[in-house]
Amino acid sequence: MRVIDFRLRPPMGGYLGMVMYANIERTARMAGGLGMELADSVRRRSPEAMIREMDAAGVRYGVVPGRISPVLGTIEADDVASIVATYPDRLFAYAGIDPVDRRRAVAAIDAAIGRGAKGVVLEPGLSSRPMHLDDPRMYPIYAHCEDRKIPVLFMAGGNAGPDITYTSPEHIDRVARDFPDLRIISGHGNWPWAAQIIHVCYRRPNVWLSPDMYLFGDMPGAQDYVNAANGFLSERFLFGTAYPLLAFKDALDAFLRLPFKETVLDRLLYANAAELLGVPV
Amino acid sequence: MRVIDFRLRPPMGGYLGMVMYANIERTARMAGGLGMELADSVRRRSPEAMIREMDAAGVRYGVVPGRISPVLGTIEADDVASIVATYPDRLFAYAGIDPVDRRRAVAAIDAAIGRGAKGVVLEPGLSSRPMHLDDPRMYPIYAHCEDRKIPVLFMAGGNAGPDITYTSPEHIDRVARDFPDLRIISGHGNWPWAAQIIHVCYRRPNVWLSPDMYLFGDMPGAQDYVNAANGFLSERFLFGTAYPLLAFKDALDAFLRLPFKETVLDRLLYANAAELLGVPV
Amino acid sequence: MRVIDFRLRPPMGGYLGMVMYANIERTARMAGGLGMELADSVRRRSPEAMIREMDAAGVRYGVVPGRISPVLGTIEADDVASIVATYPDRLFAYAGIDPVDRRRAVAAIDAAIGRGAKGVVLEPGLSSRPMHLDDPRMYPIYAHCEDRKIPVLFMAGGNAGPDITYTSPEHIDRVARDFPDLRIISGHGNWPWAAQIIHVCYRRPNVWLSPDMYLFGDMPGAQDYVNAANGFLSERFLFGTAYPLLAFKDALDAFLRLPFKETVLDRLLYANAAELLGVPV
Repeated sequence: MRVIDFRLRPPMGGYLGMVMYANIERTARMAGGLGMELADSVRRRSPEAMIREMDAAGVRYGVVPGRISPVLGTIEADDVASIVATYPDRLFAYAGIDPVDRRRAVAAIDAAIGRGAKGVVLEPGLSSRPMHLDDPRMYPIYAHCEDRKIPVLFMAGGNAGPDITYTSPEHIDRVARDFPDLRIISGHGNWPWAAQIIHVCYRRPNVWLSPDMYLFGDMPGAQDYVNAANGFLSERFLFGTAYPLLAFKDALDAFLRLPFKETVLDRLLYANAAELLGVPV
Repeated sequence: MRVIDFRLRPPMGGYLGMVMYANIERTARMAGGLGMELADSVRRRSPEAMIREMDAAGVRYGVVPGRISPVLGTIEADDVASIVATYPDRLFAYAGIDPVDRRRAVAAIDAAIGRGAKGVVLEPGLSSRPMHLDDPRMYPIYAHCEDRKIPVLFMAGGNAGPDITYTSPEHIDRVARDFPDLRIISGHGNWPWAAQIIHVCYRRPNVWLSPDMYLFGDMPGAQDYVNAANGFLSERFLFGTAYPLLAFKDALDAFLRLPFKETVLDRLLYANAAELLGVPV
Repeated sequence: MRVIDFRLRPPMGGYLGMVMYANIERTARMAGGLGMELADSVRRRSPEAMIREMDAAGVRYGVVPGRISPVLGTIEADDVASIVATYPDRLFAYAGIDPVDRRRAVAAIDAAIGRGAKGVVLEPGLSSRPMHLDDPRMYPIYAHCEDRKIPVLFMAGGNAGPDITYTSPEHIDRVARDFPDLRIISGHGNWPWAAQIIHVCYRRPNVWLSPDMYLFGDMPGAQDYVNAANGFLSERFLFGTAYPLLAFKDALDAFLRLPFKETVLDRLLYANAAELLGVPV
C-alpha cells in the first residue's frame, strides 16, 4: 500500500507557534473527540519522528498547507517552502495566500509557485475580512489560478468562517461552475454538508473531495462520503490525516476499517493525489 | 405487480434531439455512475421496443414530462401531446410550460390541459431567466393551477438551476404553504436535500415525492426516502425511472431491493400515481 | 434508571385549550406517524394519571415549557407557574416569553424567574412578527439572559416558523457565537438539519441538543443524533417526550431501543438535565 497524505502540518517552523502545537492538550482533546490519540512525534515536536511514522504507515508524500488567518494562525508561504525543502522527497507545499488584496494575492501565488509550491490554499472565510468562497472579490484570484493551471485547496468544511454558512455548498458550487478548468479541492469535505457536496462533485467534474478528519468518529455523512468514493467519485477523492490531529497509522487504520472497495483504495490513498501533484502514478 | 412510471421520456419526437438521446454515451455514463446500463430500446431509439420493455416489467402507464429549457433542451407541449397520442392507453402527458411570461404560461397551460395533459411541468430554474420556485413572478401561475386543480411537477432536485440553491427546500416549502390546495410533485425528490424535503412533506400535505433516479447508486439520502415512504409518506410517494436514464426492469429490480415494506409497495408503485392521474386505483 | 423529561405539557390550565389537547385526534395522528399511541392520561386529560405514568416510567422530573404564539397557541408564564406549583416536586417551569417587544420581554423574564422558572422559552419564528433566532431585535433579550445566567430553550426544529429556514442552522450558530456564556437548548434538535446542528454543537460548547420526538419514527438524522450523543455530545444531550405527543413509557422504550451506549445513558436521561435545572446530579 502506498499513501499520500493531503493534509499534514509538520512540527516545524511557524506551525510550532500555531494553536495545534502551542496548545497541544486542545489538539489531544479534539483527537479524543474522534476517538484518537496524538502521535508520539507530535508531543515531542520531532520532524524526524514524524518522518519515521510516515515510513511505518506507508505514507510516501505529504502535502503541507499554508494558512494566512488572524483567527487560526498564519504560516507564510516562505515558511512552508523552507519546511518542504528540508524533506524535498517527502513533502510538497501548498502555499497559503491572503486573499484580501487581490494584487498582492496574485503576486504571492506566482512567487510561491516559482518556489515550487504545487498549489495554493485559499481560506477567505478565515481572512481578516471574512468572505464566502464565491465572493466576487475572490474571482480575479480564481481566474489567475485557472489560467495558470494552479490547483486551489479550500478549507471548505468545519470551522471555515464566522458561521456555518461558510461551509454551505452553494459557494463552492458557484466557483466550480464559473471556473470550470480550475481544479478545486474541498478540504474537510464541506462537512457537515456531505450530501450536498456530493451533489456538487457529481455535477462539477473539477471538484476533488478530501473529508480527512470528518470521515472518523462517527460524524454525520461518513457513510455518504464512502459511498461516493466507491462510486462516481473514485477518481476525485483524497486521503488526509490533518496531522498533528490524527496519527498516520491510526488514521489509516480507521480509514481501512471504513467500507471502501478494495478496487478503489489505491486511487483514494495515492493515485488521485499523485495526479494532482504531478508525481508518478 | 402493477407499476406507473412517473418520469419517462420515450425515444420519439423532440426527445430525440435532446442531449439524453443526442449524446447517448453521456446518458450511458450517467447510468453507469448509478451502476446501471441503458435499455436496448434506448440505443435503438425504438418506441415499440420501449413498450415491450414496459410490458415485460409490468409498467402499465408512463408519465411523459415536457420541458422548456435553453439549458437542457425543449420539448413543446404539442410534441408531448402527439407522443402520448401514439400510445393513448399507456402514456400520459405532463406539459412543459415556459414560466417566463405569465400570460403566455397560463394560456399554454389551458391549451395543454384542453388537449388532455394531466398536469404541467414547471422548471423555472432552467428557464431563460432562472427563477427559484418561490419567485413571486411564478405565483400567478400557481394560483391558476391551484384554482383549476392542475397538478404541478417540479424538477426540484439535481441540476434544477444554475446552482445548488435551486433545489434547496425553502423554495418548494413556501410554494406549498402559499398554495395549500395545489398538488405539487417534487421530481428528483429535491435531492440532495433528502432530510429537508422529508420535513417539508411531513408539514405540507400537498407535496408528493418522487426521488426517481436518486434512490439508486448509493446516493446520499436513499435510506431516508425509503423510511419516509414506509411511514408517513406512503400515500404521497411516486416511482419513476427517468427513462432513458434507467431501464424499466433494472430500475424496478433496484427499487425492490431497497427495504420498502411489502404493505406499501402497491401504493408507491401504482396507486398513488393512479390517484394523481385519475385512472382506476 | 432515573429520567428527566425536558419537554412535557400536562393536561392542565392553558394547555387544555391548545391544539394538542383541543384536537386530540390530530395529536393521535401525529403520534401514529411516529408509530406511537397516545397515553391514557392524555385522552382522559388527567394530571393525576400523568403523574402515575411518570412514576411507572421512572420519570422523576418534567420541564414544562410555556409558549406565546398566535400560530400554535399561548400558555402564559403565570399559567405555567401555577401548573408546576401543583406538583412542585415533579415539575419545573420554563416560561414562554413573547419577544416582540424587548422591554416587555425582559420584564416578563425577570418576573418569571422571580416566580421560580428555571429558564425561558423563546420562539421568535412563531411570534406575531416572525423573526429568525439571530434577528438583531432578539439580541437585547439574549444579552439579558446571558448576563443573568438564564438558560434559553428554543423550539429550533420542526415547524419553528413560517418556512423551513427558521430551523436552518446558521441562526442558532450565530446566537451561540455572539453569546458564548448563554446556555442554549435546541428543542426538536434543529430537525431536519441533524448533521448541521451536530457541527454547531461540536463548535459551540454552549449548545445543548434535545431532538425529542424526532429521534423516533425512522426520521432522517436519528442515527446522527445517537452517534453524537454517544461521542462528543454526551454531556449536552437531553431527553424529551413532547408529551402529550408521546407517552412516557413508549418514548423511553423507543429511546432505549436506539443504539445509545450504556455508559452515557444516565447522562442523556438524567444528569445533563439535572445540571441545567440545578437539581442534585
